[in-house]
Amino acid sequence: MKSSTSLPTFKDVLQASKTIEPYAHKTPVLHSSFVDERAGAQLFFKCENFQKVGAFKFRGGCNTIMSLSEADAQKGVATHSSGNHAQAIALAAKLRGINAYVVMPDNAPKVKVEAVRNYGAEVTFCESTLEARESTLQEVVDRTGATFVHPYNDARVIAGQGTSAYEFLNSNPDLDVLLTPLGGGGLLSGSSISAKAIKPEILVIGCEPELADDGLRSIKSGKIEPVLRTDTIADGLRTSVGDLPFQIIKQNVDDIVTVSEESIIEAMRFIWERMNMIIEPSCAVPIAAIFEGKVDVKGKKAGIIITGGNVDLGSLPW
Amino acid sequence: MKSSTSLPTFKDVLQASKTIEPYAHKTPVLHSSFVDERAGAQLFFKCENFQKVGAFKFRGGCNTIMSLSEADAQKGVATHSSGNHAQAIALAAKLRGINAYVVMPDNAPKVKVEAVRNYGAEVTFCESTLEARESTLQEVVDRTGATFVHPYNDARVIAGQGTSAYEFLNSNPDLDVLLTPLGGGGLLSGSSISAKAIKPEILVIGCEPELADDGLRSIKSGKIEPVLRTDTIADGLRTSVGDLPFQIIKQNVDDIVTVSEESIIEAMRFIWERMNMIIEPSCAVPIAAIFEGKVDVKGKKAGIIITGGNVDLGSLPW
Repeated sequence: MKSSTSLPTFKDVLQASKTIEPYAHKTPVLHSSFVDERAGAQLFFKCENFQKVGAFKFRGGCNTIMSLSEADAQKGVATHSSGNHAQAIALAAKLRGINAYVVMPDNAPKVKVEAVRNYGAEVTFCESTLEARESTLQEVVDRTGATFVHPYNDARVIAGQGTSAYEFLNSNPDLDVLLTPLGGGGLLSGSSISAKAIKPEILVIGCEPELADDGLRSIKSGKIEPVLRTDTIADGLRTSVGDLPFQIIKQNVDDIVTVSEESIIEAMRFIWERMNMIIEPSCAVPIAAIFEGKVDVKGKKAGIIITGGNVDLGSLPW
Repeated sequence: MKSSTSLPTFKDVLQASKTIEPYAHKTPVLHSSFVDERAGAQLFFKCENFQKVGAFKFRGGCNTIMSLSEADAQKGVATHSSGNHAQAIALAAKLRGINAYVVMPDNAPKVKVEAVRNYGAEVTFCESTLEARESTLQEVVDRTGATFVHPYNDARVIAGQGTSAYEFLNSNPDLDVLLTPLGGGGLLSGSSISAKAIKPEILVIGCEPELADDGLRSIKSGKIEPVLRTDTIADGLRTSVGDLPFQIIKQNVDDIVTVSEESIIEAMRFIWERMNMIIEPSCAVPIAAIFEGKVDVKGKKAGIIITGGNVDLGSLPW
């Protein structure tokens, strides 16, 4: 088994693609002439909002858990997350028939706690600070011997996330540009491995909220810069870039662009209305970047990975 | 050209499938283990909410307009509708490069008027009564010589609507049951033609709101019964069954079931939350029928045609 801390390669993505094939959906690629007209380009959407657990995170979690040795697997897996990664780990563990331990802050939305429990995971609550999460996770790992699955700073997770772009370039080989949101960097780095291996001349672009522009600042300074605020509506992108993804992004990614909160909400609603699919705010970031003219795609074919659709329908931002 | 008033056959559906192929999306089939778990069955969703104009109606409108003789086409097409059919006609006419005339009530939502105009159709307003709609349409037809395209009481439209079930049975040949909503009957009758031709033993079931149960009453009495109320949230199903669809439904359809308003809204939200797609209330009717136990699908494979996703995001029913 590949170590989880050495850089993943395209070969790892190919292996991940085989590993997750019995479990993951091959997500559809949709397009819309309405959206094309507004963008002045042909946009193609790889819909991970229709993936299991409603997000691309299932790919990375599933690859990691299915790749564990039998001995490790029997001790279970653990993570701290209140988002899509927690559900991904819980479901993949259930599919492998092993235990999942998820540490969540005690103020996590009930619906998210229930979702994780519904997959059979054991939830341990802690205070809502990073220190409390990490120390509680450590206690769980010490007690159970479970393998910690990081949401993005792990080669197996990155290789798993790269399978979406691999499928995408296979079904749409004439893409000129590939855009993904940039949060922890698992999706962007994994996607860039696939895209540059299959089509070296493709442009790969990471997209961030202006309020969480740590990726852009990190590329500029050459070292990982912290997120300074955590109030962007794109809640999946509030984390800083991980060390492993950052090394890959530095090599492979052509540009990082940022967009305003208003443009994220507007692009999100536009896609809901025009494409009849539910996308979470994070997915709207690359679309907003195109609509705002932050990325020049005029007359080109651009692919966007729609990361997920987990939204609270009871409190929409419009 | 097949007359628009004789009964369409499976041959007409096959021809329609070729006719619309260059213009229509081959819509994806999605499924969800969450939904399966609740239903105690395997449910597959043929997603016409991702069709052009966001609804299956594009299939019938496109087939009709592309089938017109050159002489007829040059005079344009006309319809009265404030819903998906109007957009379907407008877009199909634009794609053929001919005029579309749409009669709409003067209280039609502005967004629907704009959508039709954006496709280049000429909108004529009238009072919001059936008489005014019909007389205004007649004036438009007299003035322009345009061909009236009825939303469901037309063999070419029915054949076009049948192409969705045709694709569905091709991609999912092991379906045991096929469910569609029942409004005017174009989709249900067209779907039944395809389904029974490809797989005679499949059950085909029409689903209605209790508040618009004219289809069920018509089957019971043997003649077309009027809709008695127009206040169901499933606004696409407020019309009475058409004469042509009714003849086909009597022959082909195994059962018609009805569901409450509450269960429609609940099923609609469940699909939004669990499958991340936007479905309009009409599409939720067959799903509600399964969740309510009105259709016995336990342990079976059931296919549902998701009819469309045109919903006002500014006023959701929860």
